[in-house]
Amino acid sequence: VTEAEFIAALRALPLHPGARELRDDAAIVGGLVVTTDTLVEGVHFLPTDPPADVAWKLVAVNLSDLAAKGATPEGVLLNLPLGGEAWDRPFLAGLAEILAAHDVPLIGGDTVSLPDGAPRVLTCTAIGRDAAAPPRSGARAGDALWVTGTIGDAGLGLAIARGGQGPAELLAAYRRPRPLLAEGRSLAPGVHAMADVSDGLLIDASRMAAASGLAVTIDLAAVPLSPHAPADRAGRLAAATAGDDYQLLFAAPPGWRPPVPATLVGTFAAGRGLALVHGDEDVPLPPRLGFEHACIARPR
Amino acid sequence: VTEAEFIAALRALPLHPGARELRDDAAIVGGLVVTTDTLVEGVHFLPTDPPADVAWKLVAVNLSDLAAKGATPEGVLLNLPLGGEAWDRPFLAGLAEILAAHDVPLIGGDTVSLPDGAPRVLTCTAIGRDAAAPPRSGARAGDALWVTGTIGDAGLGLAIARGGQGPAELLAAYRRPRPLLAEGRSLAPGVHAMADVSDGLLIDASRMAAASGLAVTIDLAAVPLSPHAPADRAGRLAAATAGDDYQLLFAAPPGWRPPVPATLVGTFAAGRGLALVHGDEDVPLPPRLGFEHACIARPR
Repeated sequence: VTEAEFIAALRALPLHPGARELRDDAAIVGGLVVTTDTLVEGVHFLPTDPPADVAWKLVAVNLSDLAAKGATPEGVLLNLPLGGEAWDRPFLAGLAEILAAHDVPLIGGDTVSLPDGAPRVLTCTAIGRDAAAPPRSGARAGDALWVTGTIGDAGLGLAIARGGQGPAELLAAYRRPRPLLAEGRSLAPGVHAMADVSDGLLIDASRMAAASGLAVTIDLAAVPLSPHAPADRAGRLAAATAGDDYQLLFAAPPGWRPPVPATLVGTFAAGRGLALVHGDEDVPLPPRLGFEHACIARPR
Repeated sequence: VTEAEFIAALRALPLHPGARELRDDAAIVGGLVVTTDTLVEGVHFLPTDPPADVAWKLVAVNLSDLAAKGATPEGVLLNLPLGGEAWDRPFLAGLAEILAAHDVPLIGGDTVSLPDGAPRVLTCTAIGRDAAAPPRSGARAGDALWVTGTIGDAGLGLAIARGGQGPAELLAAYRRPRPLLAEGRSLAPGVHAMADVSDGLLIDASRMAAASGLAVTIDLAAVPLSPHAPADRAGRLAAATAGDDYQLLFAAPPGWRPPVPATLVGTFAAGRGLALVHGDEDVPLPPRLGFEHACIARPR
């Protein structure tokens, strides 16, 4: 059973009206926004990543999903393994930091023991309120595709975390992503569709197009890069497929100007699928559009 | 860092007003009841347990927490590993069964890949509505302690699952617990405190007493046993410390008669701690009051 088949089987179960067919970053239940993400050691983070950073990231990636719905965090639930002496204290310290940084209280959770040597598996469920909650599926033909910030920094940071050299801000982009809660709240009422860039610009944009029943064209030359990223076509493709950016990706009517800094990177049109250009030139799609939860720490 | 220290550190974080100090089965957020539990292969279930039964139990133990708050399920979120060919299809079938049995829709979730050979870790988060939500901490001095159903069946079932002999209904008590949702709804408005028996009658009763700032005395002779359980004192102690029963344990004013079948097993009084009697006789506390998430599959 592949992941796609597994998710298709889940979609065939009775779904809550707010489940959005399991195609969104979050569900809507009783006026609240609910989202959940699991991080697995060796899959979503490296065994060598500092425990405090893993705690930060666990909460941050869930808050990022709330940001994409324009929600204000109400709190989080945490399902955590007891991780051993060297793990637990720095992990708890990192948890305190991310909760304080975004004024997020703890609602509940569960702690478990894992068998010796088992990879750590951590789950966060975030609940938000007051959300305009633009769906992933709301893009319309003619809409512009925008993205906040710069793309690809976390991918370069992962290479550093694996032992490469590079500036500290790239490593921080990978280990301590900043959930764009204020930006999401500001954008949500005006956009047609919004999601965060968690798996890579190309794959997340193509999911937005597919959920909206549309085609999308992305201009690689327009993809915003940090000064550290190689700006040639290979560098741009690497950035657009790297994942872990946690920038906000949104569809908005042509002519609409976002209230926060963002870059126009593409357009939606009738049809289906993703097309890539570099200025006036067509670019063939790369074999991999983003990070699809393969193992980052060792080959599987 | 022990589990108690870890949880104490979590309690020192900023808590949501509905978090009930992380001492309850569930939290209250925006009028909804939220609860979450994680099952770990080799810790909370056996690697030999059928995947359909693991799916059932994953959802059932969370619905049981909603039952203890008198809530009606609104839906569940599931964080699931892709488990391989032999696992996924029966798991999905068991999931469909428990959701249909209790008319519970899927709200959302996350699917992840685990490194090869890693023990499966599964999380369910259940959301309920319309709850009277009696706290664990609401018992008053003089209250009676009641429990529904029979105690110890799942413990005997676990011994069968590990290779022993015994009747199918005991194995089913361990593998397919029935969340007592109707009973919980019926009891919740009249009781002072309620929780489910997940870790063992003695430990769960002592937690209710501790949360309520009281002492509790339990009469082993009164503990309701199924006809399969040895009714001598050793058998009664085994039943009262076995866990996984998912019966409802509640504190109610003296003289109050529960609206569903239940057995009076103890009384609360000023003071602290758990005392055990067998009729008129004092019984020393056993070294272990219940299941505290040690490994059930192999020694750690």
